[in-house]
Amino acid sequence: MTLREITADDIESLAVGAWILGTGGGGSPYLGLLNMRRLYAEGHRVRLMPAVELADDDWVAAVSNMGAPLVGQERLTDSRTIARAVALMEAHTGYRFRGIMALEIGGGNSIQPLMAAAHLKRPVIDADMMGRAYPEAQMTSVAVGDLKPCPLTTVDVRGLEAIVDKVPSWKWMERVSRKICVEYGSIASTCKAPRTGREVKRWGIHSTTTKAILIGGAVREAQRTHCDPIAAILAVEPGKVLYRGKVRDVERRTTEGFLRGRTQLEGSGDWRGVAMRIEFQNEWIVAWLDGEPIAMSPDLICVLDSVSGEAIGTETIRYGQRVAVIALPPPPVFLTPKGLAHVGPRAFGYDIDFKSVFAA
Amino acid sequence: MTLREITADDIESLAVGAWILGTGGGGSPYLGLLNMRRLYAEGHRVRLMPAVELADDDWVAAVSNMGAPLVGQERLTDSRTIARAVALMEAHTGYRFRGIMALEIGGGNSIQPLMAAAHLKRPVIDADMMGRAYPEAQMTSVAVGDLKPCPLTTVDVRGLEAIVDKVPSWKWMERVSRKICVEYGSIASTCKAPRTGREVKRWGIHSTTTKAILIGGAVREAQRTHCDPIAAILAVEPGKVLYRGKVRDVERRTTEGFLRGRTQLEGSGDWRGVAMRIEFQNEWIVAWLDGEPIAMSPDLICVLDSVSGEAIGTETIRYGQRVAVIALPPPPVFLTPKGLAHVGPRAFGYDIDFKSVFAA
Repeated sequence: MTLREITADDIESLAVGAWILGTGGGGSPYLGLLNMRRLYAEGHRVRLMPAVELADDDWVAAVSNMGAPLVGQERLTDSRTIARAVALMEAHTGYRFRGIMALEIGGGNSIQPLMAAAHLKRPVIDADMMGRAYPEAQMTSVAVGDLKPCPLTTVDVRGLEAIVDKVPSWKWMERVSRKICVEYGSIASTCKAPRTGREVKRWGIHSTTTKAILIGGAVREAQRTHCDPIAAILAVEPGKVLYRGKVRDVERRTTEGFLRGRTQLEGSGDWRGVAMRIEFQNEWIVAWLDGEPIAMSPDLICVLDSVSGEAIGTETIRYGQRVAVIALPPPPVFLTPKGLAHVGPRAFGYDIDFKSVFAA
Repeated sequence: MTLREITADDIESLAVGAWILGTGGGGSPYLGLLNMRRLYAEGHRVRLMPAVELADDDWVAAVSNMGAPLVGQERLTDSRTIARAVALMEAHTGYRFRGIMALEIGGGNSIQPLMAAAHLKRPVIDADMMGRAYPEAQMTSVAVGDLKPCPLTTVDVRGLEAIVDKVPSWKWMERVSRKICVEYGSIASTCKAPRTGREVKRWGIHSTTTKAILIGGAVREAQRTHCDPIAAILAVEPGKVLYRGKVRDVERRTTEGFLRGRTQLEGSGDWRGVAMRIEFQNEWIVAWLDGEPIAMSPDLICVLDSVSGEAIGTETIRYGQRVAVIALPPPPVFLTPKGLAHVGPRAFGYDIDFKSVFAA
């Protein structure tokens, strides 16, 4: 059994890398990072377990904070909340979880399993179900795989606890759990439908915690050595630079548990005189260059600070920031017709065919 | 142990009497009645158990359909749905219920415990928590008594099942469960927080199933013998006639899981030339005579067909109906300052002091 201890330095890198993979969403990792620094200072340690090491009949908890990232910034994170979501699921199902994995490796949700794991003394499984962040419950590899969508537990810091025990479809899980989340104040800590080891091995997106640590580590190393952090990212991930420029405008509204809006960018360097617009629903969904869609979900669109290389979230992007926009390749599971039905541009209400930045 | 079998004729009377006690809400008993006729035709029988016969440590399920009465009319009742809400609560808590009681004796919700009892082969406990119908979760004797508000199960005919497991207050239970109910389509079958026998004996409103059967029986007897059904009701309950007249106008809208609106009446006989307006939130809440509030919650305001004596619901009242408006006395638990805080006119947003129709 290969269980590697996640170091305090790994967590610093994870916070940077997962914020990039968050494609604007998943919530800022900062509050989660502060929690983990404190838990490590108190002596907690978390171990990382490769998904392939799971037994077929192990049970795995998949966790995330659900809601509007802007609210997640405003309501402070208590690391015990996500642990309560997992404990409630164990009480409800009678399962004992072998480990805890992220629903999405993007943003603060990459740190949620570490917080739960520290309190519950279980390993973190090195996998997630999105390979990035997505806003809705049916936008996962396990939904594409038609695995069971329920039950799901939701808790909040006030002591609210609700369980969505049965639903006829993933879309119904999204509908009911979203309404609960909105009533909690547009943020809820959730434990998703428990997965067997067999399911995680078949449908999980593997090694994404490791990938986030690697990307974050590359950025931090570039910062230390005063190298170009964007180039450092592209050295460890096969991505493409889409644009460089400055934020000219942001429109943003929190509705029905989501953060929606768009940002307008003004080009610099090779892109002088060329305008980019990026629309978001929690995450960056479609990027338009002079009115033409040039990048879209499921390709990862990442808006980065062009000096530090750190990600800029949809809830914090603001006028005047200097940015580089890059695309990273998506997990293959989302490139099938079924995958695109779940997370392609039409799943977000755009009447355009998916065309990958990485198409030959 | 005194367990009386509820006869098929009792159920016919219960449907009539509970619709009157529903004060316009609780949903029409008609679809529940059809279900019970069929269950009795198939050989099911339900027994009635006085609350005082409960042991202190018995567990009792309290059930109701939650939502907008208008939707309850449109989506047909399946008697198994409410039984599933109870079964889900037993699975969640591990309790075995001694019996099943109504949350509210008003309207169709008086029949819900009978349907669950028939499928689950348990007695109906002769008590409820409102002594009428009320629209919100905190408008009960057990909420006035500060008993525990959770857990609560919600199910629907599609197979949706959700559990509100913990809440810090009754008002939070109302908020979260209402949102779930609205997402189900503004109707959900619910099993409320399990109650102990001790709690039902102390805080339940006793013998209300029997009372509804008695009132309904009096109306049906008056119909058979061509006597005045209003007088027949007042012979078994110490009520007062408030008004007689005709429906001149109805405004009605289904919002946030409630049916809200008002009706305008035109007087006849002693009330010729005098206008009555009654405002409702699922139930009739405040009656105004020429602009003066003359009856209000928690007093029961019942709008009845002046010929048949049968109740008219807020979702079915329509232009031209000839009506008698009567008031019936409320359970004493709602007349305390705490009781009035839960169900007095201010609890419905009216800035008026409660004055009872029955005040000396």
